[in-house]
Amino acid sequence: MMPLGEAFYRGRVAAIQAALAAESLAGILLLDAPNVIYASGFSHIASERPVGCYVPQTGEPVLFVPLLEQENAAGCWVGDIRCYFEYPGELHPVAWMLQEIGARRIGIDRLSLELAQRLKPDCLPCDLVNRLRWVKQPEELAQIEKAAQYADFCLECVLAGAGDIIRGGGTELDILRACLGDTLAKMQKEIGEQFMLRGAAVVGTVHSGPRAALPHGKPMARVPQLGEPLIAGIGASVAGYHAESGATFVVGDADDELMRALQTADACRLAAIDALQIGATCQSVNRAALDVLRAGGYGDFIRHRIGHGMGLEGHESPWLAPGDNTNLQANMVFSNEPGIYRPGRDGIRLIDSMIVREGGAFVPSRFLGLHPPEHRVLAL
Amino acid sequence: MMPLGEAFYRGRVAAIQAALAAESLAGILLLDAPNVIYASGFSHIASERPVGCYVPQTGEPVLFVPLLEQENAAGCWVGDIRCYFEYPGELHPVAWMLQEIGARRIGIDRLSLELAQRLKPDCLPCDLVNRLRWVKQPEELAQIEKAAQYADFCLECVLAGAGDIIRGGGTELDILRACLGDTLAKMQKEIGEQFMLRGAAVVGTVHSGPRAALPHGKPMARVPQLGEPLIAGIGASVAGYHAESGATFVVGDADDELMRALQTADACRLAAIDALQIGATCQSVNRAALDVLRAGGYGDFIRHRIGHGMGLEGHESPWLAPGDNTNLQANMVFSNEPGIYRPGRDGIRLIDSMIVREGGAFVPSRFLGLHPPEHRVLAL
Repeated sequence: MMPLGEAFYRGRVAAIQAALAAESLAGILLLDAPNVIYASGFSHIASERPVGCYVPQTGEPVLFVPLLEQENAAGCWVGDIRCYFEYPGELHPVAWMLQEIGARRIGIDRLSLELAQRLKPDCLPCDLVNRLRWVKQPEELAQIEKAAQYADFCLECVLAGAGDIIRGGGTELDILRACLGDTLAKMQKEIGEQFMLRGAAVVGTVHSGPRAALPHGKPMARVPQLGEPLIAGIGASVAGYHAESGATFVVGDADDELMRALQTADACRLAAIDALQIGATCQSVNRAALDVLRAGGYGDFIRHRIGHGMGLEGHESPWLAPGDNTNLQANMVFSNEPGIYRPGRDGIRLIDSMIVREGGAFVPSRFLGLHPPEHRVLAL
Repeated sequence: MMPLGEAFYRGRVAAIQAALAAESLAGILLLDAPNVIYASGFSHIASERPVGCYVPQTGEPVLFVPLLEQENAAGCWVGDIRCYFEYPGELHPVAWMLQEIGARRIGIDRLSLELAQRLKPDCLPCDLVNRLRWVKQPEELAQIEKAAQYADFCLECVLAGAGDIIRGGGTELDILRACLGDTLAKMQKEIGEQFMLRGAAVVGTVHSGPRAALPHGKPMARVPQLGEPLIAGIGASVAGYHAESGATFVVGDADDELMRALQTADACRLAAIDALQIGATCQSVNRAALDVLRAGGYGDFIRHRIGHGMGLEGHESPWLAPGDNTNLQANMVFSNEPGIYRPGRDGIRLIDSMIVREGGAFVPSRFLGLHPPEHRVLAL
């Protein structure tokens, strides 16, 4: 079973082959799971057992899988599927793939120095598929928009239900379980009984009070308290394509300083959307957005960049971050995550998903736009 | 917050330093998350933002983290914690770590060929920490035993409850949700409110009938039918240490051939336990176990090796598989997973966890030993 139709994958292989011709490579061996999925449609989770897809400059691709994936792989469009028994095996599976390929001067998307020294393959590290993945096709954007809607729905569940849960003595974990459970049930109903096979999922975090100051805090059995911020960050995927939506809610009532911080984070979010113009560099978007936090006096409480690419990976290149000079092109997709983290006190994070478009960014996540900061309140 | 006590990590660093001296290395830069956790106790999930731990041959280790992990990292025992702002950054974070380290001729546990060509570091690929992790310390074995007990508990929930769920029209997903939910609640109660911060989790799969023939099948909204096998495979972790327990149940009643296959899989399991002797090679254990399936006439239905190492990773070296000549040492930990997969018909998989000991393997997962094949029945 493939997440998208055969025409999509055939089109992507044609694009890879055009890029191979431009770089005078005989082919490329893909070993990174998202790259393999992009070309073959064979959905799988990376493990120690290598899965490879070889795309020659002309002709049909070959998929290399461990024997235990034989039946799963047969559901994808690639006709030439070859199996090895197990990892590690007498011959390293990547050495076996290179033998099967035979060609010289090929690209490879990922290879460890250790394996390169051991196998001495005639391969060049090559990120052309990663770069092709930057600009999303219409089929991909459609899935990302659906994923953003499910992430939004999950936040609506928090807004509608968390106040009651907290009043009843419920914890961060209870809130998270409730909103994820409702969202998963909706996805299962709408996407069909095989929704998990189709790369659909929803994950998230809820954390509150002083623990909201940890950018990577985990939800706990903690009851959020009156006046605290509660961060809900939700990631959803449909057909393996990711989007995010996230909000900071106020439990009951916010004091003036917390409301000022929430409004500054919202201004930062809007600045990122404004800056997301075709031709701008990724790092200039980051700078324009974070400058709003700095101007608001929150410079010491910045802990991370404004955003990252999204698609077949939840985090993928390019990065809206210092050091990334990539020029924005139409149909690139990014997160937009203003964060203010005040250790020992509290924290705030907002998350939108953004798509680069002619004439300005499109924002498929709608929660933050629909609910201004003063309405993100969990009434007790 | 560290999963184990400071004495454990200090002991591990001392062992790493002794190995560095034996290999005449000035130090080792660890970039693989489980290796970093093994030395520092800093629990984190790998992302595109590198986290590094440098262990010099003498003296104290240094932990390198992205700024957003600053507060989380402060909870571990390492005193010297240095932060970079973001990925990718003007300077690649690994280049920055190497600059901070300064030393020449160091080991590195993981480096891509692409980064090696770009940074030209004075580093040697070095797996000494991965090899140290093979033999578990008493503190680690204690966590693995606890994890095995939670995986067992989850299977007991299936045995006790799945019949009722199926009778009520419930699906694989309903069975999985129920058993995981009950197990998580037990873990939360027993390990404490911060159980997720302490690296505790339970995951699993339930699949039945013809779909049981897929080694990597996902649970679906499918109602298991009378006479079918139902595979439940559970992985649990405590303090970040993994164990597995898994069983194949019969829905209502098994025909003679299914019962023969279940009994042959059990004989295979016992053969692996018998073969797990100090000094034997990993691949000889695999051969001894799978030979039982072949002798029973199931050779065409083998899809994978008998097992893999477990510890800080759910799958880690060494491997009970062809091509792994590692000699077994006391306190190595492995899964034991006989599988018979008959495409279009059905499938069977059992899972034990095994610890190598003087005098014979110890099996911390108890479900299969307590319930012989004829008692693994979901009464309808």
